[in-house]
Amino acid sequence: MQFRNEIPVARDKLLFTPGPLTTSQTVKEAMLRDAGSWHADFNALVADLRTRLLRLAGLAREDGWEAILMQGSGTYGVEAVFQSCVPPDGKVAVLANGAYGERIVQMLKHARIAHRVLRTAEDAPADAAALEACLGEDSAITHVAVVHCETTTGILNPIEAVGRVAKRFGKCYVVDAMSSFGGMPINLPACGIDFLISSSNKCIEGVPGFSFVLCRREALLASEGWARSLSLDLLGQWKGFEKDGKFRYTPPTHVILAFDQAMRELEQEGGVEGRCARYRRNHETLLAGMRRLGFKPYLDSSLQSPLITAFLFPENGRFEFGQFYTALSERGFIIYPGKLTRVDTFRIANIGRLFPEDLEQLLAAIEAVLKKQS
Amino acid sequence: MQFRNEIPVARDKLLFTPGPLTTSQTVKEAMLRDAGSWHADFNALVADLRTRLLRLAGLAREDGWEAILMQGSGTYGVEAVFQSCVPPDGKVAVLANGAYGERIVQMLKHARIAHRVLRTAEDAPADAAALEACLGEDSAITHVAVVHCETTTGILNPIEAVGRVAKRFGKCYVVDAMSSFGGMPINLPACGIDFLISSSNKCIEGVPGFSFVLCRREALLASEGWARSLSLDLLGQWKGFEKDGKFRYTPPTHVILAFDQAMRELEQEGGVEGRCARYRRNHETLLAGMRRLGFKPYLDSSLQSPLITAFLFPENGRFEFGQFYTALSERGFIIYPGKLTRVDTFRIANIGRLFPEDLEQLLAAIEAVLKKQS
Repeated sequence: MQFRNEIPVARDKLLFTPGPLTTSQTVKEAMLRDAGSWHADFNALVADLRTRLLRLAGLAREDGWEAILMQGSGTYGVEAVFQSCVPPDGKVAVLANGAYGERIVQMLKHARIAHRVLRTAEDAPADAAALEACLGEDSAITHVAVVHCETTTGILNPIEAVGRVAKRFGKCYVVDAMSSFGGMPINLPACGIDFLISSSNKCIEGVPGFSFVLCRREALLASEGWARSLSLDLLGQWKGFEKDGKFRYTPPTHVILAFDQAMRELEQEGGVEGRCARYRRNHETLLAGMRRLGFKPYLDSSLQSPLITAFLFPENGRFEFGQFYTALSERGFIIYPGKLTRVDTFRIANIGRLFPEDLEQLLAAIEAVLKKQS
Repeated sequence: MQFRNEIPVARDKLLFTPGPLTTSQTVKEAMLRDAGSWHADFNALVADLRTRLLRLAGLAREDGWEAILMQGSGTYGVEAVFQSCVPPDGKVAVLANGAYGERIVQMLKHARIAHRVLRTAEDAPADAAALEACLGEDSAITHVAVVHCETTTGILNPIEAVGRVAKRFGKCYVVDAMSSFGGMPINLPACGIDFLISSSNKCIEGVPGFSFVLCRREALLASEGWARSLSLDLLGQWKGFEKDGKFRYTPPTHVILAFDQAMRELEQEGGVEGRCARYRRNHETLLAGMRRLGFKPYLDSSLQSPLITAFLFPENGRFEFGQFYTALSERGFIIYPGKLTRVDTFRIANIGRLFPEDLEQLLAAIEAVLKKQS
């Protein structure tokens, strides 16, 4: 079968989690090398990856776009944007409807950056009209931030509508696209995005170890002298790449070799469109099967991403998540707990090297576990 | 031969660099797994690694010590200490004699933390007497920071003498032991160290992707509310581990699996003492051979670490480093350029999965290249 592991190995448990996720054997095998981070070959690869990341988003340096890799998890990449690109007297409006929106708020608090939070319920999308009212009354705001696919619930926020408002008011627009970039088309210019952040171990199906920022060069260059952290200095990192092609500080070389292979496999699958099609098939398989087993998704289908789905606990009251999780784990399937404050849910992601038949296997295991528990 | 790669693979160029370095095949093969970062097995491994890191340093939690893993390169770990553990009105005295001491100064500038730099020449050790005078006259200083093995030259700074002064004045003492920890014995209590930082891809011979901090719990707990960055919040990271065993944000799972294997191989080699003995043999082999070929080390031997050595360009004037580097690279050996401001040097590190016969091979290649160039 296409894109299947070709070398038989002891099978790991399949990860139905939002990341780290199940990767191909070939992606992992790309890490069986020791590359010198000062060496020309490696630096040429890094330069190539930066170009290919832009191309994946339909962007190019000639049109004023840049791609910057940052060591650390996705959160480091998001924080790098705020620590570096908000001026000392800047103020950020955060649209939040889940844990990752709230994480941005935590970042701003730590960095002592002024901010205002526009919250919607966890099952309601970010509210562009509320942002419009807020920007109309608070002219101190310089930046607008939102999470595209909020992993808390799997909700998709309307990044284009929010971006239109941000741009009408001339604000810098930051989108955390951690869980969606590479797995869903995102038109950065149409959305008015200035900074978009994602990571190596999400829909590109690499392994965890770095994040990356796609940004408008003009917005990046405007941040001279603002960085509050050396490691997270986005402009400094870019200058390092521009100067001699190198990471300023030791890069996770093996993770980057894996990412190169992952990008190749993504390109072979037909880029974002091809990958998105597989994720949609996975998602539809999951949803149909879970409905058949009596589970209801938490979100209205109009808000649901095809990447991660939150399911309500069954209403019969006998459901115990810990047992359910463990029984599935023993059968080789790792699912994900819920993160909601007021409703009992669990989550199943369908990104990573997973195919509809993997979802079918998971569904069969869920059915067997439920039968045993009832 | 003991510790040799057991599975024959296409041989990578050997890295005589300060990191990333050549790792064993078994360390790399440990990355051929996808672990779930939420799963109990993985979290048990992380807890175990934290204990083993302390044990490697002769420390234990019962005695008030903690080990904290931080995603990102070694620089992230060093910056995490300053961003988190220096109070808002704190001031840091930095003893600097190379690029890594200067990097600490850059971190403090970015974080707008007050500081004072005590510089010595690049070939002179950190000056404990100068620190004593400084602490005597400037009572605002709260922290003292020094690099143990300054990778710029390979010089060893007198961390015990510096620590005695810091402790006599009741200051918090931070040691960047990036290049030395695991490869040389360091007695943290005897040196009075409160925070020591190193990384996954140095003398422990893992692959790059995270750093770790060993610290006195009391000094850590004193930092409540001080962190200026969420990602680099050291106390926050520790609280996450203590709460449920998890990294707060996605860990580089594959890099951590490799680190587990690297720690096992270090333990099998006889711990720090065994590894240090091999590095000393490597270093002696290198030094004798280079002397034979007419190269002189930059440092006085009393200051020289057995880990990385800076060599002066030959005096004949015909030496061209770029050609030399490329010719060695073509023969399968990657060395390291110099980083000194006023003297022409290049560097050869002998850490990583390297043995005296690898150094002999490098020396033979250097001899051949020199013959061809002359």
